[in-house]
Amino acid sequence: MKEILEAMKATNSAFTDEVIAKGNVGALEQVYTADARVLPPGAEMVSGRSAIQQFWAGAIQGLGLKRAVLVTVEALPAGDGVVEIGRADLDTASGGLSVKYVVFWRQEAGRWKWHVDIWNPNS
Amino acid sequence: MKEILEAMKATNSAFTDEVIAKGNVGALEQVYTADARVLPPGAEMVSGRSAIQQFWAGAIQGLGLKRAVLVTVEALPAGDGVVEIGRADLDTASGGLSVKYVVFWRQEAGRWKWHVDIWNPNS
Repeated sequence: MKEILEAMKATNSAFTDEVIAKGNVGALEQVYTADARVLPPGAEMVSGRSAIQQFWAGAIQGLGLKRAVLVTVEALPAGDGVVEIGRADLDTASGGLSVKYVVFWRQEAGRWKWHVDIWNPNS
Repeated sequence: MKEILEAMKATNSAFTDEVIAKGNVGALEQVYTADARVLPPGAEMVSGRSAIQQFWAGAIQGLGLKRAVLVTVEALPAGDGVVEIGRADLDTASGGLSVKYVVFWRQEAGRWKWHVDIWNPNS
């Protein structure tokens, strides 16, 4: 489990350091599986990596997302996958936003990635 | 998987028919594992069945929740568990509310129950 947690950290860093901080949505390939699902608050479910890239490009621009910090609260083994409960702090153009999330992780080509991703605000 | 889906349906019916329609929060014992986690939008994470009973009692009263319809969109095998993506339509005192959800299911004493439960509104 320790090695899996390390691998998860690397993927989360790709999201925070590449996708959010640098706006490089191409790096989402390292974050989400090809047939991943994103369930964002206030919008319909988004399916598949290219739709997910569009979603995040729009969210980064629309919200002025500049920084994200992800903290794993719990990682529950789930067969070949892991169910993670976490917290995220986001800096947007209109201020800070604290959310909690659940991610179902799966391996794709030897890399741990987000297969199902859902979150909501704490307040 | 077919039998598991049937068992999941029975648990979902306990939630919609007993807990929501009749306001019987005691039936949440059949729905959530003892150490389940609920991550509701606009509030902090709720841990453990008795805190979850309090949460739902408050939500049913506070929102005037009268009716819930749950539809499984996808059920992904996850070792001993299942990751379910679904949609829920809720009738509240102030009108209808459509949400999407992710539930991590686990067996407890031979019954399939919600171990991690998170949702958010579609609009």
